[in-house]
Amino acid sequence: MTVRGRFITLEGGEGAGKSTLIAGLREHLLRHGITPVLAREPGGTALGEAVRAIVLDPALRGMCAESELLLMFAARAQLVRESIGPALAAGQWVLCDRFVDASYAYQGGGRGQPYERIAQLEAWTCNGLVPDLTLLLDLPVAAGRVRAAGRGASDRIEGEADAFFERVRAAYAARAAAEPARFRRLDAGRPAEEVLAAATRALEPLLREAGR
Amino acid sequence: MTVRGRFITLEGGEGAGKSTLIAGLREHLLRHGITPVLAREPGGTALGEAVRAIVLDPALRGMCAESELLLMFAARAQLVRESIGPALAAGQWVLCDRFVDASYAYQGGGRGQPYERIAQLEAWTCNGLVPDLTLLLDLPVAAGRVRAAGRGASDRIEGEADAFFERVRAAYAARAAAEPARFRRLDAGRPAEEVLAAATRALEPLLREAGR
Repeated sequence: MTVRGRFITLEGGEGAGKSTLIAGLREHLLRHGITPVLAREPGGTALGEAVRAIVLDPALRGMCAESELLLMFAARAQLVRESIGPALAAGQWVLCDRFVDASYAYQGGGRGQPYERIAQLEAWTCNGLVPDLTLLLDLPVAAGRVRAAGRGASDRIEGEADAFFERVRAAYAARAAAEPARFRRLDAGRPAEEVLAAATRALEPLLREAGR
Repeated sequence: MTVRGRFITLEGGEGAGKSTLIAGLREHLLRHGITPVLAREPGGTALGEAVRAIVLDPALRGMCAESELLLMFAARAQLVRESIGPALAAGQWVLCDRFVDASYAYQGGGRGQPYERIAQLEAWTCNGLVPDLTLLLDLPVAAGRVRAAGRGASDRIEGEADAFFERVRAAYAARAAAEPARFRRLDAGRPAEEVLAAATRALEPLLREAGR
């Protein structure tokens, strides 16, 4: 029997605490004898990081929504092909900072690109790959902005108006409501250790299934 | 009545002499009182040139065909939106070094990406834009390679095997056969001045229509 790894994605807006949570989940998995593969979007491959630099470049403020969407999927296709796909096939666990749901939220909800178009791109590039668990770090837009502001200069997407991030948040909420078995919403306004505790509880069934 | 400009694209393999021909056509149009907008693919915008650097980077040899296709259309969407579309709407003539046909030839014929997928991407990004005239510089693969070799280090696509370029050439020929009214095939093995003369003859009906 082939052992397939588990695919866990983290989603959420700016300043929601994804990086902190990923670090905590990595420690948690290590304690269970699992060394997860970490990935991020856009990025995670040489091609993806080059695309990331374009997508976030504040100088490219005139980028059209179609280009942004296609760039995101160009990076994603390579990540699936080169990193996530082979890791899962080899039985590894993958923790990914954003995945397809982010395109529905940002390029769909945020930029107004049609969901059917995003679904078509997903079918072309993701090889049927769907996360086993998606942790949605939910936070009111204003609170996220305060946290993200502490990081210095904002990138092209962070520079968007609040209305954009409200649409992103609503699109995430709709995705989570449509797939309750896959999504777990976490209140990112809680202290980091509480968020981590809720996330590790959400991981329990996967660890149990895997005999860890 | 709105005056719409004319959209002329040049297509062809490596070493076919597109740059030389574009310079000659530009001179020809200038003599007719037309200052054409020049564009190239991938590229032609700040975003497009950044994408071009990725697509041609020899270090990214493992780039999957899906990513290459999406990158090409990301650059194209921006070029249509920012440059070609506004120029044509303002009555300008546009000379473009490669356009959608190149994706059918390179990513379709060369890389095996399905033509229906390319047509779908075209519909999403090109706003119904079809060249008024497409000059196909046709050259046997071996001859193109000899010419391109004179330019120094080859980029990621130039580094492909002859079989790849044979598929590209065949796909171009099929496009030209399917749309004989739009395409004019030029024998790129002829001296440059003969190629230019044939190209300017192909332009005559457009100039006449435009009263030039």
